[in-house]
Amino acid sequence: MTKTLPTDDLATQHEQLGRAVTKIISDYAATLDSRKVTSSATPQDLLKIFDEPFPEQGIAAEEILARFTDEVLVHAMQVPSPRYFGQFNPTPLPIGVWADALTSVLNQNAGAWRNGPTSAMIEARVLRWLCELVGYGPESFGTLASGGTEANLIALKCARDRVHQTAVQTGLRSASGDLTVYASDQVHFSIERSVDILGLGRASLRKIPTGPDFHIQTDALRKQLDEDRKAGAIPCCIIGLAGATSTGVIDPLAELAQIAVENKCWYHVDAAYGGALAFSSRHREKLNGIALADSITFDPHKWMFVPFACGAVLVRDGGRILRDACDITPEYLNEDRGGADVEFDFFRYGQMGTRRFNSLKLWMALKFMGRQGYAAAMEKQIALTEYFARRIDELSDFNRMNDIETAVCCFRFLPLEYVSVPGGEQDRLQQKLQQEIERSGEAWIHTTVLNNRRVLRININSFLTERRHIDDLLELLVRTGKTVA
Amino acid sequence: MTKTLPTDDLATQHEQLGRAVTKIISDYAATLDSRKVTSSATPQDLLKIFDEPFPEQGIAAEEILARFTDEVLVHAMQVPSPRYFGQFNPTPLPIGVWADALTSVLNQNAGAWRNGPTSAMIEARVLRWLCELVGYGPESFGTLASGGTEANLIALKCARDRVHQTAVQTGLRSASGDLTVYASDQVHFSIERSVDILGLGRASLRKIPTGPDFHIQTDALRKQLDEDRKAGAIPCCIIGLAGATSTGVIDPLAELAQIAVENKCWYHVDAAYGGALAFSSRHREKLNGIALADSITFDPHKWMFVPFACGAVLVRDGGRILRDACDITPEYLNEDRGGADVEFDFFRYGQMGTRRFNSLKLWMALKFMGRQGYAAAMEKQIALTEYFARRIDELSDFNRMNDIETAVCCFRFLPLEYVSVPGGEQDRLQQKLQQEIERSGEAWIHTTVLNNRRVLRININSFLTERRHIDDLLELLVRTGKTVA
Repeated sequence: MTKTLPTDDLATQHEQLGRAVTKIISDYAATLDSRKVTSSATPQDLLKIFDEPFPEQGIAAEEILARFTDEVLVHAMQVPSPRYFGQFNPTPLPIGVWADALTSVLNQNAGAWRNGPTSAMIEARVLRWLCELVGYGPESFGTLASGGTEANLIALKCARDRVHQTAVQTGLRSASGDLTVYASDQVHFSIERSVDILGLGRASLRKIPTGPDFHIQTDALRKQLDEDRKAGAIPCCIIGLAGATSTGVIDPLAELAQIAVENKCWYHVDAAYGGALAFSSRHREKLNGIALADSITFDPHKWMFVPFACGAVLVRDGGRILRDACDITPEYLNEDRGGADVEFDFFRYGQMGTRRFNSLKLWMALKFMGRQGYAAAMEKQIALTEYFARRIDELSDFNRMNDIETAVCCFRFLPLEYVSVPGGEQDRLQQKLQQEIERSGEAWIHTTVLNNRRVLRININSFLTERRHIDDLLELLVRTGKTVA
Repeated sequence: MTKTLPTDDLATQHEQLGRAVTKIISDYAATLDSRKVTSSATPQDLLKIFDEPFPEQGIAAEEILARFTDEVLVHAMQVPSPRYFGQFNPTPLPIGVWADALTSVLNQNAGAWRNGPTSAMIEARVLRWLCELVGYGPESFGTLASGGTEANLIALKCARDRVHQTAVQTGLRSASGDLTVYASDQVHFSIERSVDILGLGRASLRKIPTGPDFHIQTDALRKQLDEDRKAGAIPCCIIGLAGATSTGVIDPLAELAQIAVENKCWYHVDAAYGGALAFSSRHREKLNGIALADSITFDPHKWMFVPFACGAVLVRDGGRILRDACDITPEYLNEDRGGADVEFDFFRYGQMGTRRFNSLKLWMALKFMGRQGYAAAMEKQIALTEYFARRIDELSDFNRMNDIETAVCCFRFLPLEYVSVPGGEQDRLQQKLQQEIERSGEAWIHTTVLNNRRVLRININSFLTERRHIDDLLELLVRTGKTVA
C-alpha cells in the first residue's frame, strides 16, 4: 500500500485497504465469543503505548492497520461480545458496520439538501418511520442527533422557547420567573447538562422521588409543581423516562401526559433506550401514552444495534417547531430552489451544522431487520433478562432490585454475613465483585446506585447473547462471590 | 448473504459484506473523475424513489447494497470529486473511510474510559497533537465534537460561565446585565445559534462590520464594546475567524487577542477550516496570535480530509474549564478507578454523552499524512486557488472579490452589459450561471452574499484536484457565461 496521497491510484488504494480491513473485521468476529471482554492493561500501560510525538512524515497504511490490530483492538473494551453486559452499548449489526464505510466514501454533508440530496431524503424517510413506530401522526417530524444527550438538548430548547417566547431573541434575562423542569430522580445526566446549557441553571431541574418500582411518584410531582408555581416559577417541561438508565424501567407515560396538559408544560419522553419496545406487539403497551408527548428522544444506536453515533429527536407537532428553535439561515445556503432545500435542510432543525450521513446505516438496518426482526431480537433479550432475574431470585446470596421491564436487571450480592453490616461495607462488596469480574475478563457487568446504595447491574444488548452466556455469567457471579465475601 | 441475524455466522457475514463493499467503493473511486458531480434528479424524483412503507420483514443484504449503488450513490452530490468546488467538504482520505468500518465494528462508547480504554487514550493523544499544532502549551486540553457548530457552542459555554459564574447553577436570569458576544459580519451561523441555545438571545451577538478585505474592523469593534458597556451590557466573548465561511479569510488574530484582554473577554478563534494552515511553514504565519485564544474550534473533517464527523474544540488553560462547564457525574459512572476514568472520560468535557470513536480516523489520518503530507496538500490547494484567481483576473467578464488567504475564491460574472444594471439583476445572473453549471454536472460551485450582493464562490478541498480540473472549470465558466448573459 502506498504511503502517499492516492491522487493517481485511488481505486487501488481503496481495494487494498478494503481487503485488509475485511480480514481484520472477520477475524475479529470469529474470535469474539472466546475473547476476554476486558484487557488487563492499566491506564498507565495504555498511556505509554500511545505516547508518541507529532507525526512528521507519513507512514504506510499497513503499519497503521497493524498498530490497530495489535494495540487498539486488543486493549479495547469488547463491547460487541455476547459477554458484555454493560451500558446501552449494542453489538453493532454487520450491515451497519459496513454502511459506515459507504457513508464515509460518499462524505455527504447531510446537513443541506444541496450537499447531499439522497442523504436528505433518507434522513427524512427514517425519521418518518421512527415517528410512525412511536405512534405519531403524519404532521410529526424530527432530526437525527449525535446521541440522546443532544436530542434531549434540542427537545428542551423547544420546551424553553414555547414557555418563554422571547428567549430566542432576548435570552433568559427577560423571563418573568425561573423556568423549571421536572423528571424523576432516575433521569439521565444529560437533562441536567441541558438545562445548564440552555441558561435555565442546573437548579431549575426538580428531581422527583421514585417509588419502590423506580417509577416517578406522580403525587410528589404534582405537589412540586404547585409549590413552584406558588413561589413564582414557571413550570416549563415534564420529562418521562422510557427505559431509565439504571433500571430500564418506564414511567407512567399517559399519566405524565395528563399532568403536563394540566400544567401547560411541554411533555418530553426520554425513550433513548426503551423506544425500541415499540417494535414488539408483546411489549409495546409498556409505552402507552408515549404518542402524547410533544417530543421524544429515541436512539437507534442503543436498542436497534446501529453503530454509534445515531440518536434522534422526534416532535409531534411538526418541523416548524424545530425550525423556529434552531434555524438561522446563512446567506451562502439561502439560494432559492423550489423549497426542497429548505424542507430537507436538516441543519435547520437541530444543533448541528455539518452532519454525517448517519441515516444510511439506520435505513439499512431497518431494511435488514424489519419490524419482525427487531421484535424477535428484543423479545429474546427481555426473555433472557427475565431468565437471569429468576435465577438470581433462586440464589440466596443475591437480591434483585427491579422488575424486568426491558432488558436490565439490577441486583446486590449480600451473603448472610453482609446483611447486617453498614451500607458502606455492602457497597464496597459490590464494587469488589464488579472489579474481580472485570479483571477476569470472562464478562463485563457494572454498578450503579439505587436508594443511595451501590448495586450491580446488567443489560443484555447483544443479539449474540444466548442462554449459555447467561448461565456462564451466573456461574461466574457465584464463583467470584465466594472469593470476595 | 443471510437476511437473518448473524448469531452463528458473524464472521462469514462480515466477510461477504466487506468484499461487496470493497468492490462498490473501489469501483466508485475508479469512476470518480469522469462522473457527473450532480444528479439531475429533482427533489420530487427522489421523494418518489425513497417513499416506502415501514419495513415489516427483513430483506437480504445484497438487495440493500444494490439499492445503495443504484439509487443512493448515483443521486448523491459527488463531494469527493476533484470537480466539486463547494463548501468545506473534503474528499475523504481512504484510510479515514476504512477507519470508519473499524470504528463501527469495535463500537466503543468513547465517552467513558471504562467503555473504551483505547478510544479514550487515542482521543487524548490526537487532541494533544492538535493543541501542539496550534501552538498551545502542555496544560491545554480539548474534546472532539460532532462539528464546528458544537465546538463553538462548547467554547461559548466556557465564555458565558467565566463571565457569569453562577450561570451553571442559577441560569441567566440572575445576570446583572446582558452578556454580549462580538464577531465580524462574516461569522458562521453557528455562533448565533449558540448564543440562542445558551440563553443569551440572538440579539446578544454583535456583528461587527468588515473592511474591503472582509477582515473585522477593529476600530468598530472597540467602539461597540464601549457603547455596550456604557449601556450596562457585560461583554463576554470576542470571536476571531480563521478561514471565514464565505471568503476563507483570516481576522487579525493577535490584535483581537489584545482587545479581548483589555475588555476582560473570553477570546475564541473559529478556525474550523483555517486551523489546518498550521501544518505549513509557508502559511502558518497567517494564524499569528491564534495561540493567545482561550479556545479554538478546529475541524479535522474540513481541511484534514477526515470523513465526517470529526470536529474539535481546544482550550488553552486546560480541561478543568471544560469539566466545570460540562461535567455532571452520574452515579452509574462514578466508580473509583485510580482517577483514570475521570481524566479520560470525555463525556465530562463536552456536550455529548455517548460518543463515537471518531478519534481513530483522525489518528490514522495524521499517521498516514504526517505534518509534511498535510503541508504539501494544502500548499498545492492554495497554489491552485491562486492560479484560479490569476486566471479570473485575466477574464474581463469576471471580477474577483477577495484576496486568496486560504483555498477560497469569490468572484462575480459581470459582462459589460451587466455592469450598470440594478444589483438585483446582477444577482440573478450569478444564480443563473451557478444553476447552469450545476445542471451540466461538469463541476459544482456555489454562491454566497458579500456586501449584500450575490457572488460565485469556489473552495478547493479535494486532494484529487489538479491544474487540469481548474482549467476545465474556467472553460466551463466562460462557455456557460455566454449562454446565460
